[in-house]
Amino acid sequence: MEGVDHLAHERNKSEFDVDAMKIVWAGSPHAFVVSDRISKLVASDPGFRKDNRSTLSRKELFKNTLRKAAYAWKTIIDLHLSEEEAAKLRFYVDEPAFTDVHWGMFIPAIKGQGTEEQQQKWLPLAYKMQIIGCYAQTELGHGSNVQGLETTATFDPQTDEFIIHSPTLTSSKWWPGGLGKVATHAIAYALLIVGGREQGVHGFIVQLRSLEDHSPLPGMTVGDIGMKFGNGAYNAMDNGVLRFDHVRIPRNQMLMSHVMVLGRGSSLLGPWGGKTDFVYSQWSALRGGPVGANGKVVLVVTCEGKYKQSDVPRQLVYGAMLYVRQTIVADASCALSRAVCIATRYSAVRRQFGSQNGGPETQVIDYKTQQSRLFPLLASAYAFRFVGEWLKWLYADVTQRLQANDFSTLPEAHACTAGLKSLTTTATADGIEECRKLCGGHGYLCSSGLPELFAVYVPACTYEGENTVLLLQVARFLMKTVSQLGSSKKPVGTIAYMTRVEHLMQCRCGVQRGFAELSADLVEAAVAHCQLLVVSKFIEKLQQEIPGKGVKQQLEVLCNIYALFLLHKHQGDFLSTGCITPKHAALANDELRSLYSQVRPNAIALVDAFNYTDHYLGSILGCYDGNVYPKLYEAAWKDPLNESVVPDGYHQYIRPLLKQEIRTARL
Amino acid sequence: MEGVDHLAHERNKSEFDVDAMKIVWAGSPHAFVVSDRISKLVASDPGFRKDNRSTLSRKELFKNTLRKAAYAWKTIIDLHLSEEEAAKLRFYVDEPAFTDVHWGMFIPAIKGQGTEEQQQKWLPLAYKMQIIGCYAQTELGHGSNVQGLETTATFDPQTDEFIIHSPTLTSSKWWPGGLGKVATHAIAYALLIVGGREQGVHGFIVQLRSLEDHSPLPGMTVGDIGMKFGNGAYNAMDNGVLRFDHVRIPRNQMLMSHVMVLGRGSSLLGPWGGKTDFVYSQWSALRGGPVGANGKVVLVVTCEGKYKQSDVPRQLVYGAMLYVRQTIVADASCALSRAVCIATRYSAVRRQFGSQNGGPETQVIDYKTQQSRLFPLLASAYAFRFVGEWLKWLYADVTQRLQANDFSTLPEAHACTAGLKSLTTTATADGIEECRKLCGGHGYLCSSGLPELFAVYVPACTYEGENTVLLLQVARFLMKTVSQLGSSKKPVGTIAYMTRVEHLMQCRCGVQRGFAELSADLVEAAVAHCQLLVVSKFIEKLQQEIPGKGVKQQLEVLCNIYALFLLHKHQGDFLSTGCITPKHAALANDELRSLYSQVRPNAIALVDAFNYTDHYLGSILGCYDGNVYPKLYEAAWKDPLNESVVPDGYHQYIRPLLKQEIRTARL
Repeated sequence: MEGVDHLAHERNKSEFDVDAMKIVWAGSPHAFVVSDRISKLVASDPGFRKDNRSTLSRKELFKNTLRKAAYAWKTIIDLHLSEEEAAKLRFYVDEPAFTDVHWGMFIPAIKGQGTEEQQQKWLPLAYKMQIIGCYAQTELGHGSNVQGLETTATFDPQTDEFIIHSPTLTSSKWWPGGLGKVATHAIAYALLIVGGREQGVHGFIVQLRSLEDHSPLPGMTVGDIGMKFGNGAYNAMDNGVLRFDHVRIPRNQMLMSHVMVLGRGSSLLGPWGGKTDFVYSQWSALRGGPVGANGKVVLVVTCEGKYKQSDVPRQLVYGAMLYVRQTIVADASCALSRAVCIATRYSAVRRQFGSQNGGPETQVIDYKTQQSRLFPLLASAYAFRFVGEWLKWLYADVTQRLQANDFSTLPEAHACTAGLKSLTTTATADGIEECRKLCGGHGYLCSSGLPELFAVYVPACTYEGENTVLLLQVARFLMKTVSQLGSSKKPVGTIAYMTRVEHLMQCRCGVQRGFAELSADLVEAAVAHCQLLVVSKFIEKLQQEIPGKGVKQQLEVLCNIYALFLLHKHQGDFLSTGCITPKHAALANDELRSLYSQVRPNAIALVDAFNYTDHYLGSILGCYDGNVYPKLYEAAWKDPLNESVVPDGYHQYIRPLLKQEIRTARL
Repeated sequence: MEGVDHLAHERNKSEFDVDAMKIVWAGSPHAFVVSDRISKLVASDPGFRKDNRSTLSRKELFKNTLRKAAYAWKTIIDLHLSEEEAAKLRFYVDEPAFTDVHWGMFIPAIKGQGTEEQQQKWLPLAYKMQIIGCYAQTELGHGSNVQGLETTATFDPQTDEFIIHSPTLTSSKWWPGGLGKVATHAIAYALLIVGGREQGVHGFIVQLRSLEDHSPLPGMTVGDIGMKFGNGAYNAMDNGVLRFDHVRIPRNQMLMSHVMVLGRGSSLLGPWGGKTDFVYSQWSALRGGPVGANGKVVLVVTCEGKYKQSDVPRQLVYGAMLYVRQTIVADASCALSRAVCIATRYSAVRRQFGSQNGGPETQVIDYKTQQSRLFPLLASAYAFRFVGEWLKWLYADVTQRLQANDFSTLPEAHACTAGLKSLTTTATADGIEECRKLCGGHGYLCSSGLPELFAVYVPACTYEGENTVLLLQVARFLMKTVSQLGSSKKPVGTIAYMTRVEHLMQCRCGVQRGFAELSADLVEAAVAHCQLLVVSKFIEKLQQEIPGKGVKQQLEVLCNIYALFLLHKHQGDFLSTGCITPKHAALANDELRSLYSQVRPNAIALVDAFNYTDHYLGSILGCYDGNVYPKLYEAAWKDPLNESVVPDGYHQYIRPLLKQEIRTARL
């Protein structure tokens, strides 16, 4: 049956131009071409195979990841790949590795928080991988509360150095990827202490290991934090623990784009009055040299601990967070679409019940119960794709505004990014697991690809802002917006709709309670706000011209499914606020059923449009040709347990049972 | 800090008698004593340690499981444990193993479906573990649709044998635990063919492996199906694949308690007319000997393929299913309570934000957002415990009735068992993962115990009846009940409430659609029915006398939380049917918040009442004394990656990167 497309009949049913949809999914013809080429390059290179991953021991898995990372880098160099192509290659290699953090956090942190001098010194080393960096923020005792980090960086004006120290067990750095065994350098976050005063938490470039023999430098205790969820997943990554024992680093290794500690002999005298935006030119005058392209200084501290704060918003410091969270939202649609692709294809292959006169059984994708769980996830994958594109635009927009000293959209951008990070990652993690369940028993096999996908994905709900904590930030933003409704400050952008609730708010102000007391309800409100965002951006996408036969029609169906599914799921909110009647709710439900029928013939083509190779999918259940059963059967025999017919342990542990000799057996 | 109870201040807050609650949770003073003794016995025996599980390779893990199973059996024999105590011991050893299936399915199947002769022959062997059995039902191509199984058992009257055969690839047995490497025998399910006629799917005792050298018998291709979800979990189990090539077994190895194939020379002449209940005495007359204590024969087939069917309900055949599903419901509360115990204790240990004047930060259990996610799960654990007890009673009741030829409650028992299996396993799997997320980043570590708990538990949503398929069965039962409302047959028992909806049904009969078309909605109705069951049984429990200071009050709070949480979650259903007004919904929400505050001081004591040892919990985050951070730190260093400071692979893969020698490196 090799070479036969078992899903050809499904593909023939589709009512739209799949190639055109591939371009919509990729974002542009160029993006499609790059993705297509690089994904096939990775898939066809045996150096990147990953089907053997689940049976490796921790050490084997980790070593194999080191090999792949090196091999990927060699490929990038040999083929002269561009930065865009190199990033795609790492994406399609599809294995968590220290390189993710090096490229995704270490380098961006230096770019975002480093002065121009610091960038000139460190970035070339990092770009060539002459140093390998990690991002050491989280500690054993502190994650969400970054300002509560306990690691200290005490300035010693005598030597012009910072002393980095871990004063308690809970101040041990804990979780940073790449830290455990690989990274030579870290951006370590620590509480800055100057002249005996605490000056907030800031980032410092700290060398961890010798560049000659890779041994940890004096004063560092560093190791791996142990096994994590899943049998492959992040066990390929050396998430680490790190304790500092009075480690000294030069003053110029504090990231000083936004916050600056002055050495002895420098003072706060200068053109800055403390009220003015302390911008590039002024700062360079003070420093006697260029500070950095970012150049929005928030805080300046003298070696005696005196400080001046500009009125540049402090959130500016968290610019790197905006960037990282935005990429997380973009990745959500990748992970969800992958799971949906697997579940959709397998649902078309799998048949169960409903045989008529000895004919084939019903494809499980034809069951309404399957459709009502699967198709909203298919719609969500597309919805998240488009909101991710919009968020990327928003990030570019806010960055541009900041360059022009316009901070006005920063709070909104923060709220959107935080909220969408929370919404899309929660929905994606749940959606992957739902897809796994939709594959029945076989979804529990590693060869389905879904357990690994879940275990790799689910920490996204926690890292870079715990999802509930983020929703509370959104809720605070919404409450602030509501509180200002009476003022002259009219809400614009993504919160413009709030002008309409002004009247409502005036009608119902009976209850006066604290934010904390009502936080669980406020979190629900924040979720609703974010869902509105996703729906709006999907609708806006549909207002654009979208070429290709039937493409826009399919997207309209998916958009309606997404919106009506949410309405159905949260009908209590709509009903209790009188936005809809029970009759409306029933009609929405009827419409949803009808939309599922419209998606059904196009389902396989809609997941083909993701253009995933079988290598990237990493799932027998989701393989393109649908030839599932022979592949499952063949894969089983590769398990290490099948290396011998009679298992290791038979003579010691099974035979004594059967022979009633257990009392004298050595166990 | 060894020996210090870091949660003592929490325990001192509690307002009820924890020891009395322990007995309520255990079910009886006797059950408490047995559980307490056996769990401590397991915890204190280094032969049962499990903290090293996550770093073992597949083969090491499996071999270690074989050792533990043998060691458990030795312990049972050495200590002369009763059957009850032995079962508890296996439970607290807490590792999936072939013994689960041997004791939990193989033996019950012989008891339930075997004739008395068969029981006399096979049970003593199985009880002594002279044979090890598995339960080979599911195939590569068929799970839910048992009647679609493709394995054939063709009767050969010449030799008085059945020929067991796997005619297709998809007919390969696939998934049975213990099959892959250990079991010597299987109950294999196959399509019975007699005289060229198909007579439905039945169970056959088939020897798989030599009792001398453990090699598979001729005609058997058998092996392990490969890695599954999680790094430990069911990878300790040899879920297997099995193909039969015309394997012959004697006629008396078909399980014949309910269905009988007659040998040559026997005929259907006899006292049975086909309409009468074919009970024990009549059957034994025909067979010339006792048939079995179960003795309700459904079908008799001659060697020519002629058959007679009694009017004993066919569901009787699925009695074993009732039993197994009932135990699954009982296990749900164990798994959920374990996760809740871990998350609750860690939420009291973990502090984040909210430090006042340099004082300690707020315990995360004090955040309303944490409470609103955690406490409904705590309430669910108790709710499932009590509904599990009730279901056990229902099973005993229906079994007793069947003995007295009363089949009237069988459909209701089937619906309750199927529905509760679905409801409790879905909620428990989701609840475990929610508890993991409630532990923040550290919940992702294997040492939290939660990844393993999830990976071990989640297949319960799929095995022994896929949860959506089961809900559709409940929905069918409900629809049948509704359709009979107009007749003289009044609903009783768990569906008595339906008499009240009679009027409603008559008012709204506008829409006429097929079951399949509306199945997604019917599934929602089935869930609502099952939730009503859980709430009702919790309320009934509270109507009993419950000794111990404050115990009943605590349970009342939990019952209210469970009910109001469901009302809040599904408020759309209540609002759209006019059962409540938006005002009611808001009041319920207020009440819920107030109930959370009442639970708060008792939370730790309420999870202490589960009486779990640290060994059984298997979680650093959930350890009794709350001394989390030093234990996490200490555990990290045991990872194999920390065996060397410089990792294996440095010279081949890291150094060439740093030294810019990647192009010439051998990768």
